Amino acid sequence: MTDIVRGLPSTHGDSFQLNTTTLIRHAARTFPEQQIVYRTPDGGWDRYTYADAYARIQQAANVLTGLGVGPADVVGILDWNSKRHFELYWAIPGTAAVMLQMNLRLAPEDLGYVTTHSGASVVLVDESLLPAARELAPHAPGVRTWVVMSDRPSSEIDPGLPNAVFFEDLMAEASAEYDWPVIDETSAYSACYTTGTTGRPKGVYYSHRGIYLHTMAQAAAVKMGSDDTVMLITPMFHGQSWGLPQSAVYSQAKVVLPGRYAAEDTSVLVDAMIAEQVTVANGAPAIFGPMLAYLETLDEAPDLSRARLLCGATEPPLSMMRGFFELTGADVIHAYGATETTPFVTVNAGIKPTLTGLSDDQRWDLKRCQGLPVNGIEVRIVDAAGADLPHDGVAEGELLIRGPWITERYHDLDDAPGERFIDGFWRSGDVATIYPNGYLKVVDRLKDVVKSGGEWISSIDMENAVVAHPRVAEAAVIGVAHPKWQERPVVLLATVDGDDVPLSEIHDLLATRFAKWQLPDTVIRVDALPRTSVGKLDKKVMRVEYADLYQVVR
Amino acid sequence: MTDIVRGLPSTHGDSFQLNTTTLIRHAARTFPEQQIVYRTPDGGWDRYTYADAYARIQQAANVLTGLGVGPADVVGILDWNSKRHFELYWAIPGTAAVMLQMNLRLAPEDLGYVTTHSGASVVLVDESLLPAARELAPHAPGVRTWVVMSDRPSSEIDPGLPNAVFFEDLMAEASAEYDWPVIDETSAYSACYTTGTTGRPKGVYYSHRGIYLHTMAQAAAVKMGSDDTVMLITPMFHGQSWGLPQSAVYSQAKVVLPGRYAAEDTSVLVDAMIAEQVTVANGAPAIFGPMLAYLETLDEAPDLSRARLLCGATEPPLSMMRGFFELTGADVIHAYGATETTPFVTVNAGIKPTLTGLSDDQRWDLKRCQGLPVNGIEVRIVDAAGADLPHDGVAEGELLIRGPWITERYHDLDDAPGERFIDGFWRSGDVATIYPNGYLKVVDRLKDVVKSGGEWISSIDMENAVVAHPRVAEAAVIGVAHPKWQERPVVLLATVDGDDVPLSEIHDLLATRFAKWQLPDTVIRVDALPRTSVGKLDKKVMRVEYADLYQVVR
Repeated sequence: MTDIVRGLPSTHGDSFQLNTTTLIRHAARTFPEQQIVYRTPDGGWDRYTYADAYARIQQAANVLTGLGVGPADVVGILDWNSKRHFELYWAIPGTAAVMLQMNLRLAPEDLGYVTTHSGASVVLVDESLLPAARELAPHAPGVRTWVVMSDRPSSEIDPGLPNAVFFEDLMAEASAEYDWPVIDETSAYSACYTTGTTGRPKGVYYSHRGIYLHTMAQAAAVKMGSDDTVMLITPMFHGQSWGLPQSAVYSQAKVVLPGRYAAEDTSVLVDAMIAEQVTVANGAPAIFGPMLAYLETLDEAPDLSRARLLCGATEPPLSMMRGFFELTGADVIHAYGATETTPFVTVNAGIKPTLTGLSDDQRWDLKRCQGLPVNGIEVRIVDAAGADLPHDGVAEGELLIRGPWITERYHDLDDAPGERFIDGFWRSGDVATIYPNGYLKVVDRLKDVVKSGGEWISSIDMENAVVAHPRVAEAAVIGVAHPKWQERPVVLLATVDGDDVPLSEIHDLLATRFAKWQLPDTVIRVDALPRTSVGKLDKKVMRVEYADLYQVVR
Repeated sequence: MTDIVRGLPSTHGDSFQLNTTTLIRHAARTFPEQQIVYRTPDGGWDRYTYADAYARIQQAANVLTGLGVGPADVVGILDWNSKRHFELYWAIPGTAAVMLQMNLRLAPEDLGYVTTHSGASVVLVDESLLPAARELAPHAPGVRTWVVMSDRPSSEIDPGLPNAVFFEDLMAEASAEYDWPVIDETSAYSACYTTGTTGRPKGVYYSHRGIYLHTMAQAAAVKMGSDDTVMLITPMFHGQSWGLPQSAVYSQAKVVLPGRYAAEDTSVLVDAMIAEQVTVANGAPAIFGPMLAYLETLDEAPDLSRARLLCGATEPPLSMMRGFFELTGADVIHAYGATETTPFVTVNAGIKPTLTGLSDDQRWDLKRCQGLPVNGIEVRIVDAAGADLPHDGVAEGELLIRGPWITERYHDLDDAPGERFIDGFWRSGDVATIYPNGYLKVVDRLKDVVKSGGEWISSIDMENAVVAHPRVAEAAVIGVAHPKWQERPVVLLATVDGDDVPLSEIHDLLATRFAKWQLPDTVIRVDALPRTSVGKLDKKVMRVEYADLYQVVR
């Protein structure tokens, strides 16, 4: 730890604690008439105001208190991006309890592990997710109360859960005034568990302070204001929808909550975007890609030229970014982060005004990279020995990240901290280059880099080249152990027509970009690539399956 | 004090200290090529980059350390909005010392009081201000080192001050690398003394934390970004130019420093605004008014439609706001605050998108008010007994303000705190109304309200009505003690032609807006109204001069 130097005392209100619930209170006071638009369980849309929401948030806090929830208790939510989920975002942390973000896509055993590890004693569950809750319950014996949320009368619902109560029944009797405690700003606000492909989920516990600062930084970086309409597409149960619920409220923007939607419900999102004139939305390429495809089927493309689509999780394909812009004027903004980083680390919001001499292609190429570090965040790249590498746009090293909203340990976990943290920096596990002008480009996952003959081959670069083949639907490149070269790259791909792609055609695609020794020796066609619960390529599974391809003697 | 409740510990980097100097370091790393344009002492213009500035900032920190400056020391600056002043903004607080903002317009005795009360041991002074420094020196015996700043060789300068050294000579020998300490964020960053019209100047000591949060809030509220060009017109020695130097750097905007300019140098500011395509600037109506007058003399009005002109200190006249917009497209944004508030409390940046039914006149009328409270700031209005008043747009009460960048006491001052603070809120001394939709309107200074026959008359409303007279150049309304009515309003005015304005014409102007009992009985023509060192009407002087007008027996 660095020593902290103390200067003269200030006369500022430095004891003022940064508490997230003050954000919704402020918004309700200064913009009571601002709208929150939400999708109902029957697929319709409804709306209410910040003032209405704030009244219900205070009711919800009273409901929680009535259920015995107090400071340092953990309260879980099993819900879509719904109106009640939005209300609980403020109510739970406002009581000094911790909001546990419960990932619907985890297996019951894993979600049970998360629920038990966090010590959650109360879980609120949307009626539509009661089957999942019933599967979860045996794996989460510490939950003493299940709270069922529904628009329907409780008399019509059979929870099938032990100790179940009904949220709206309790709300109907709760006061709409709640005297928020002043919470030590370093207290946990919410907990989100990583869904990493290695080992058990690890707990990241965000503080009120970290969330508050992240909120301000995001609002400033995206230039959000009360003339924005913000649609939350990224699940609110995963990395708090990338902090957008909070920055939307900070900015007093109109909020659009699409509720429950499946991957095939792309039209729901697009139609809402057009109807509500959405100007800010977030999502992974796996969401925005189909949205673009749907937009292309419309008779007339809408004008979305005010829209900034925050796109993360994986690098957005260039064709998708250009497609949105050319069809609708919408700006796809690549942002980078992780569960451990709240998540804003870098954002590529607009090309620097000083970069005036770029060609159109160069500008698009620049927009693909992760962008500039957000103010408040410190980044470094280091080699395998932990030594700093220059920001010259050439050196590639592991990306280390530090800042007030970056995690510096995992909750209640005793594993070797050095594997994940160095000098207060979080080890991202990503390999990156930083250019002299500050732009950061992630080259690969450290564990996905193919180490062949003492050199590194970027699996992502090779994947991007392979998917350019017209018949390739998706591709992954993994390093497979090899008796002579340590590892060799192997291409796994799925095709649109189900036919094989010859190795020679892959070599043709890669020839201009890769050295001859880097070219793969093997191409394997599969029906679909394995993915994790959050839709990322699951290379751990692939590596296990093809570990013995080159018959290394272990 | 409210009890602070503690929840679960978080895993965030909550021990990360908000230190202002990290903002310029971040900007220099992510936007090294961004420009800082500055006016030189000979009236020319020059420019360098964030990277250049950051190197010199590190040199300056080494110079200060070499002069024995360390944590909790106080270092004063006597300078215009210059390049070196900008550098010292980061260098002094970066060493954990306190930057004392020295108001050039104070009398030597008052500035001596400020210097001595703060305990400043080192003062940096621009060569052009050596005469002022020499006048100050006898009143500031605690200053052990005077540092002379000039572009000229030191051999050509006779400081005429005890223990004088030359800044650029020391800079030339200083390393451009400095290992910034991590500073406890509640430490004082800078000190600014109020220039209130009552009593001695009072010390407001801003913290690193408060400044950092204010910076983020301002950048978000004004939607500043690296595509902005920010000109600092408000003096950097008064309320740190309203926080704009910091928010400009936070946003990585281009910065324009106009250096030394006199009131008659309006063309310098306007020409720079056009040449550098300024998009954000700050200043009082006393600056922007003459700038508009100069713009009106140009053959062709420039397009300033991206410009947001932050206007404070007093309410900007409607004619000036409309004039800027109609001539150039520039948006004059009324912002409200004080030395004690860093200063952003409210800002009127754009009319709420929900207010769609307003007429053109209603929109302009709304733009005149102080606007909406900035996120993070809490406001209340209270009656004389301290009871909360409703936000109904009718009730008028004293405005109380609280938040992380609002002062909660004065530095080293033992006067009765209740006179200036209540329950952690700062008493602004302003009388305000808050509308149900959140907009705040300052009606008057509490001490300037005319209390007549048990009722209040707003002196500001009356002044605004009087200046609508075509021959009135400026006007003030004061309450003068009266044997029957407690106080009666008296109008003081200066005319453009030097001739009197009959009382009947004033009554005609006021008739539609004021009740008959509110109409003044006396109009007094003066050559010019007395003003304070920061250009505000000095009603204290006026009240003293006309105290016996109605011959109250005391």
